[in-house]
Parts: sequence; structure tokens; C-alpha cells
Amino acid sequence: MAAADDRNKHEPEVAGAPLAIVCGGGTLPFTVADAAKQQGRRVVLMALRGAADAGRVALYPHHWVRVGQFGRCTRLAKAEGCRDLVLIGSVVRPTLAQLWPDWGMIRNIPRLLKLLAGGDHHVLSAITRAFENQGFRLLGAHEIAPEILMPKGPMGHHRPGAGEQSDIARGLALLKAMGPFDVGQAVVVANRRVLAVEAAEGTDQMLLRLAELREKGRIRSPRGVGVLVKAPKPGQDVRVDLPSIGPQTVEQTARAGLAGIAAAAGATIVAEAQQLAAMADRAKLFVVGVDDQADAE
Amino acid sequence: MAAADDRNKHEPEVAGAPLAIVCGGGTLPFTVADAAKQQGRRVVLMALRGAADAGRVALYPHHWVRVGQFGRCTRLAKAEGCRDLVLIGSVVRPTLAQLWPDWGMIRNIPRLLKLLAGGDHHVLSAITRAFENQGFRLLGAHEIAPEILMPKGPMGHHRPGAGEQSDIARGLALLKAMGPFDVGQAVVVANRRVLAVEAAEGTDQMLLRLAELREKGRIRSPRGVGVLVKAPKPGQDVRVDLPSIGPQTVEQTARAGLAGIAAAAGATIVAEAQQLAAMADRAKLFVVGVDDQADAE
Repeated sequence: MAAADDRNKHEPEVAGAPLAIVCGGGTLPFTVADAAKQQGRRVVLMALRGAADAGRVALYPHHWVRVGQFGRCTRLAKAEGCRDLVLIGSVVRPTLAQLWPDWGMIRNIPRLLKLLAGGDHHVLSAITRAFENQGFRLLGAHEIAPEILMPKGPMGHHRPGAGEQSDIARGLALLKAMGPFDVGQAVVVANRRVLAVEAAEGTDQMLLRLAELREKGRIRSPRGVGVLVKAPKPGQDVRVDLPSIGPQTVEQTARAGLAGIAAAAGATIVAEAQQLAAMADRAKLFVVGVDDQADAE
Repeated sequence: MAAADDRNKHEPEVAGAPLAIVCGGGTLPFTVADAAKQQGRRVVLMALRGAADAGRVALYPHHWVRVGQFGRCTRLAKAEGCRDLVLIGSVVRPTLAQLWPDWGMIRNIPRLLKLLAGGDHHVLSAITRAFENQGFRLLGAHEIAPEILMPKGPMGHHRPGAGEQSDIARGLALLKAMGPFDVGQAVVVANRRVLAVEAAEGTDQMLLRLAELREKGRIRSPRGVGVLVKAPKPGQDVRVDLPSIGPQTVEQTARAGLAGIAAAAGATIVAEAQQLAAMADRAKLFVVGVDDQADAE
């Protein structure tokens, strides 16, 4: 439909067009890359230094970029003929000193600084819009690889009991109530008592704190009681900001002495699902995909 | 109005009747004791071992009790002719092993265990009701010593600016939204971003976590931005469970790199107000009493 010289403008891409994957840590970027390849697409990894797994990156067409090199990243992706772009994988939130901004980044700084004043939500919106302003179409990793989404029901052999169902409902209701405030995506509830609410510290740190409080005798509920509940904030951009769990979440949940994990089905990314399920079975934890849209309690 | 032999029943006490003060740590119990004495009441301290300041306890009529000795505590208070009772001062939440329950406690255990399954709210309700069932009238410390309540407006010389007012409004609105869930009484908001939500860890631990996140470069807002916001949960029993701040709160807030503290005026207990205000001035922090009933945002 569009003339060839229009390819750098905004028309929708045909299936099979090359896909740029901005690639952070963990195995998820490669799951997405493999899914795209199976769909007949060429993939190019924009591998983030200090985050992406170099050994696995080497197996795909790739370029290395630093977190701040927005200009280099978009230039290379365009040169590779990519219009569709996915951001996936873990990135430890960089300090300003680590950012080493390039020119493409610097031009965006006034807007970024303004938006940094808001929540995570706004930062990710800013990044998303910066890519879109460069003519890219941002896709959610799960649009390429739906298999990375949390399924409904239990993963592994264990299931929540009635008390845990009640804790899950309370957790989901609390996350919903906090929705307008762009806080975290996770809470811990045990015997209907809210033990922890995630904000800037992240899920892993929150679970670590519970393990420490338990060691000090500050948690009254016994070991094996309580649920980590994760769900996306209402209105967040599911293309770039879904909550995620992985084997390390199971490990931390076990250390915190909880009974299991409940995550929004179809709206949580699961890293290394098989390993996660096996670890949950060994630790006697349940991991369950729940409907976070149902009226919780 | 009532006959003398009815004095152990439930009729209201006359002013000037003796007052039992169940006395935890810090200086507040003695502020309350002095206020009661000035009102012409005899005071008897029920000093909690391991919590109350022995040197100051010795200056008042007193008995030492352990946290679990509910029976001993009520027996002694009755023997002293006390019908009115105040619970005041800090108590590190005891482990079950530390409780060493006596018979008066044991009789209440089935109910206590049932209620421990709920939030802090329910635990304190249980304690309150246990005293009331023994014929005591539970008074709030601030009913005896209104001067311990947070005043409206700034303590010390610093005041919140417009950005901080906005963070305070957001914090109050979040606390209100979390009200039905019996979570914490404090949040930290910086540049409208929620950095931390208090749950089982308590305010001091929450502030310590922020100081650590800042050291690791995980807090994007600069030093001197952000507010600790404290307000009571809606519907909590103000006689036994008001939020409180003291000099150590100012110290921790400074370490967390925040701009100040906002606490619900008339519904927060302030320990060592003069020292607190002096410390706030030295640290260039504001400490302000705000109206948490106003529609926040």
C-alpha cells in the first residue's frame, strides 16, 4: 500500500518483517526471539551491556548498546530495517552516572526529567513515546510469545487452600485500591493481615525484608502461611510494564516462609516456567494464576 | 449516685480517682503521669519489664509486670483502687516465648489466638476488651494529657513548600484508600512518587530501607525531597492505637534524605516535642501537623 520510500514513516508492518528486541537480563529475551523466528521473522537483538547474557546474545544477530544510548539503539534498529520493537528482560534501574547519555537521549532529557518526577508508570510511558516518536511500533513481548504469560490455575502440584484463597482476594483488592497511586505491583497477605506492600524497593527486596522480620520474631503467622500477590496496576501499559515472576521469586517466597504465589493470569510474565514449577514443587509452594479482574472481596 | 459496694462495677469514675498507667518505653508515660497528678489524680504505674525506664518509674508509685501478666496487672490495679487505665509507651512486639502468660492471660488465649489471625487492629481491640471485661475503663493517653497530640501547623522553623504539600496530599489520599485493609499508618511520597508503604515492618524500618535504597542509587529523587506522611487508619481505636512520632523519627527521616514529616494533627502522639522540634531545625526538616480529614486530592 505504501511506496517504498515511505518505509520510515508510520504505516503498519506486515507479518514477517524484522523485529528489534531491546534485550535485558534473563532468559525471556531469547524466548521472545525464538518465538519471532518461528513466526518467520528476522530478529535483531539490541543487547544492553551489563544486563544481557553475552553467551546467548552471540547466537543471534545483535548489537551491543548501553542503557543511555537511545540514539544508537534507534539508528541501528532502523539500519536493520526494523520497525517493530520489543523491550524485554531485567534491567537494574540505572543511576544517572551509569546512563552515559548519547545525543538521542540528550534531546529527550527535558521531557524525561519532567516525567521522572512521576512514577515508574510515567518513565516507561516516556520511553515508549520516545521510541514511537522515532517511528517505531512498540509491541509487548507477550504479543510475540504468548507462552510467557501466566496461565490460569496452578503451575506445579500445589494449590491454595480456602484460607489462602481469602488472602489472595484481599491482596488483589488492596492492589486495586492502591491502583490510582502508581505504587508497586505486589503485596503479601497472611491470615488476612497485610505483611508487606511493595513500592520503590521491588518484589525481591520486599520478600527479603519479610524473611528478616520473621527471623526477628516480628511475623506472627507461622511458616507456610501467607501469599505473595502480584497484579498489574490498573491502566499501565501492558506492552512494557507487566509484573513478572521467575525461579528467584519462588526462592525468595520460600525464604520468606509463605505458602505460595498468586499472579494475575494473562497479565504476568513468567520467566523459566518449567524451572519455576519444579522449584515450587520442591519447596512445597503453590504458584497460581488468578483472575485479577474478578471482584476480589 | 452509686453505693460504695458498687465501686467495682461499671459506673463512671469521678475526676480525681486513681489512674493506672500501663507503662511502656520512652518518656510519654511520665508526661501522662505528670498530667494526671496535676489534675489531682493519684497515679500507679504498671511498668512493663524490658520496656519502661526503671530510673523514672522509681519516682512514682509502681508495680513491675511482664507483658504477658494480664492477670497480675489487673489484680494489682484493682487492689490500688484504680478503675481508669491508660496504655502508653513503646513495646517491641513480643514473641510468644517472651510472653510468659499468667492465668489471667491464659483464660483469654482462645479469644486472643482467634484475633491474632486478624490485623494489629484486632489485637489491640482484644486487649482493650480484655481490660474492659475486667471492669476497667480504658482511656486514651491524650485524654489525660492533650499536650502530647500533634498540633496543627509546623513544629520548628521549617515549612513544606508547594511540591511537598502536593506529596502530603497524595500520601494522605493513599493512606485513606488503604484504610479498609488495616495496613500501616505511614507512607513516603517524593515528587508524587510513592517510595514506601509501611506494613508489618514499622515506620523506623521503612525509613531505614529508604536510606539503604538511596545509598544504592535506587531512589531517583534528590536528597531533601519527599515526605513521611503518618495518619491513623480510619476506624481505629484512638485510645490505644494512635500513630506516634518522636526524635528518632526525625533522625531516620533525615537519614532517608527526605524533606520532612507530615502527621495528622490531633491524631498523632508526639514524644519529646521540644527535642523533636530542635532536631528538626538542626536537620533542616519540616514537621507539620495536617488535617487528614480534608479531602486530600
